[in-house]
Amino acid sequence: MLVRWRKIVREQVLFVRVFFIGDPTMYERYWQEMGDKTTVVIPGWQFTSYFSDAGNLCWFLEPELAKEISRLHKVVGNAITEGRLTVVGTGSSQLFLTALYAFTENDASEPFSVVSAAPYYSSYPAATDCLKSGLYKWGGDARNFTKTGPYIELVTSPNNPDGFVRQSVVNRSGGILVHDLAYYWPQYTPITSAADYELMLFTLSKSTGHAGMRIGWALVKDPSIAKKMVKYIELSTIGVSKDSQLRAAKVLKVVSDSCGTAARPRENFFAYCHLLMAERWKLLREAVKQSGIFSLPEFEPGFCNFFQRLFEPLPAFAWLKCEGSVEDCESFLKSHNIWTRSGRHFGVSPSYVRVSMLDRDRTFGCFVKRLSQIHL
Amino acid sequence: MLVRWRKIVREQVLFVRVFFIGDPTMYERYWQEMGDKTTVVIPGWQFTSYFSDAGNLCWFLEPELAKEISRLHKVVGNAITEGRLTVVGTGSSQLFLTALYAFTENDASEPFSVVSAAPYYSSYPAATDCLKSGLYKWGGDARNFTKTGPYIELVTSPNNPDGFVRQSVVNRSGGILVHDLAYYWPQYTPITSAADYELMLFTLSKSTGHAGMRIGWALVKDPSIAKKMVKYIELSTIGVSKDSQLRAAKVLKVVSDSCGTAARPRENFFAYCHLLMAERWKLLREAVKQSGIFSLPEFEPGFCNFFQRLFEPLPAFAWLKCEGSVEDCESFLKSHNIWTRSGRHFGVSPSYVRVSMLDRDRTFGCFVKRLSQIHL
Repeated sequence: MLVRWRKIVREQVLFVRVFFIGDPTMYERYWQEMGDKTTVVIPGWQFTSYFSDAGNLCWFLEPELAKEISRLHKVVGNAITEGRLTVVGTGSSQLFLTALYAFTENDASEPFSVVSAAPYYSSYPAATDCLKSGLYKWGGDARNFTKTGPYIELVTSPNNPDGFVRQSVVNRSGGILVHDLAYYWPQYTPITSAADYELMLFTLSKSTGHAGMRIGWALVKDPSIAKKMVKYIELSTIGVSKDSQLRAAKVLKVVSDSCGTAARPRENFFAYCHLLMAERWKLLREAVKQSGIFSLPEFEPGFCNFFQRLFEPLPAFAWLKCEGSVEDCESFLKSHNIWTRSGRHFGVSPSYVRVSMLDRDRTFGCFVKRLSQIHL
Repeated sequence: MLVRWRKIVREQVLFVRVFFIGDPTMYERYWQEMGDKTTVVIPGWQFTSYFSDAGNLCWFLEPELAKEISRLHKVVGNAITEGRLTVVGTGSSQLFLTALYAFTENDASEPFSVVSAAPYYSSYPAATDCLKSGLYKWGGDARNFTKTGPYIELVTSPNNPDGFVRQSVVNRSGGILVHDLAYYWPQYTPITSAADYELMLFTLSKSTGHAGMRIGWALVKDPSIAKKMVKYIELSTIGVSKDSQLRAAKVLKVVSDSCGTAARPRENFFAYCHLLMAERWKLLREAVKQSGIFSLPEFEPGFCNFFQRLFEPLPAFAWLKCEGSVEDCESFLKSHNIWTRSGRHFGVSPSYVRVSMLDRDRTFGCFVKRLSQIHL
């Protein structure tokens, strides 16, 4: 029994290391430098109730968090919040599944198809199909989607894994769009306009780097959709951790404050993180050049309304391609002790891999060093 | 649009008040009296990683929480933890769905039937069927279950809504049992032995009263089942709030400490809460007697190993029956401004209702006063 258990643990660790290589620990440094500014103190008697705001449609949303979400989107200019309802979730993973529940119909004659243009976020197919739902079913690459009937297209922009700005590709009348905007923040990509879609998903993990809090939010236009989302979160988790909502509110407040004129330039959260990303992309592009057997996406610069200047996207993931004779890039890199996630999981060729750009300095440094030393 | 939105909000508030009348705010008082003992301070740089314990099968479980869960079960003597794996969840609601995923098979020819003896927890049918899963399907009252094929029986003991201690009722070979032991704590029921089942669910909401933290845990015998549970939580929420896990660990530690010989008797968490429950049940039984048109379950006393004495169960819910000519007890009580949940939702007659015994003193006082004044 013990041997079997140990084997399972080892497999699990292996799986996890590969799966979650997108751990945003890079952000730890900024928050350490900010000292006590975002420290929260929670007394033991707090949060014996399920409710945060009984009069609100999303009755488990802490009002302070709702306020700070709205404020930050205004400060950054990346999403319209007016006339939207906010639904909080246990990370945006829960909200993605919640959106599928909300947009589909219990009495539909067949499951709604869920599609996304490849390369797509590797969890979409598995999360969609894990319960063999009769409401929805993974339909694969949106570019090859020809099936008739209702569908939901997931538009991740900037895209995970490749970092490109995206639009929907199916464009059939009656199509439902879910916009995953987890990476639509100025450290990663120029903020060209305030996003104005039916349903937009955001997460703390990729905006401020607090993945362990498990806080995401949806901005929802249609109140009846928001109502169904709330119902699903009631059924699946009866709300969302209030402790994390409280912390999230504080963190978002400090981020908004850091963008104000009263803050010192070094404190500006997005400027600080943008600089880090720019340094890392510079190092990565140099390492790729030095090695000579990989390629990276090339991006067009765009004008960012937040920073008021032109720059090229600096995605949270590097979408690396092995050029030449290497067919399985993941295995090839593993043999050089670099852990990545194969393009196969993202619906494309195994000559691609996804690598996190958000790990701690030491890990990132190791990665580029090892990469630069690989030669065929 | 605004009018429509307001209407939805009103409906929602109504729904929620009825649905969650089990809000455990009674516990707030104890935790206020404990002052700073369970206060937690979380610096802003904490929890940028998804991981809590990368080497553990349940890699998102905070080690400190795992330790305190195990310790508390030993102190109370209500569950065996040796040779078990602990899986943490966003409340036990998530763990219930996680257990269904873990016990069913993706390639089964038909969905597993999910059954529970009526009266059963009202969320079981809705949560089981909300996604029209092909893995499992609500099969109704376990006592009338005659369908062949694989099944999962949910055994809630003490039972929600009626407070009785339960055993499985189907007893077919190959049947799978999930034990929901949310109320198996000495403030509610005599701890007669350490539970020793395949899969046992517990939650902070009903043990310490911190419903807003959304922390539950499962004690799991079979590592391959625990592994599937971890996989499901990865897919649905990528782990569980670390802030709440940290607080939960502290709260459980203080509860265990309060049971030790070094603590003052007034501080003993279970003794304190048991006394509160005993007072409330006394008041309720008096009110029911005074009114003369209701009845309550009668319980056999049992010897509690924790308190080392005999007592009658003091359930978290009162399972009230309107005797005589009243058929719809929920509507009848609503007309007297008492909000309850009809027996219909629990798979039995509407002459029953479930009423929370865990609300704040004032609300509970109002309830018994109003009840005692109802006469036909």
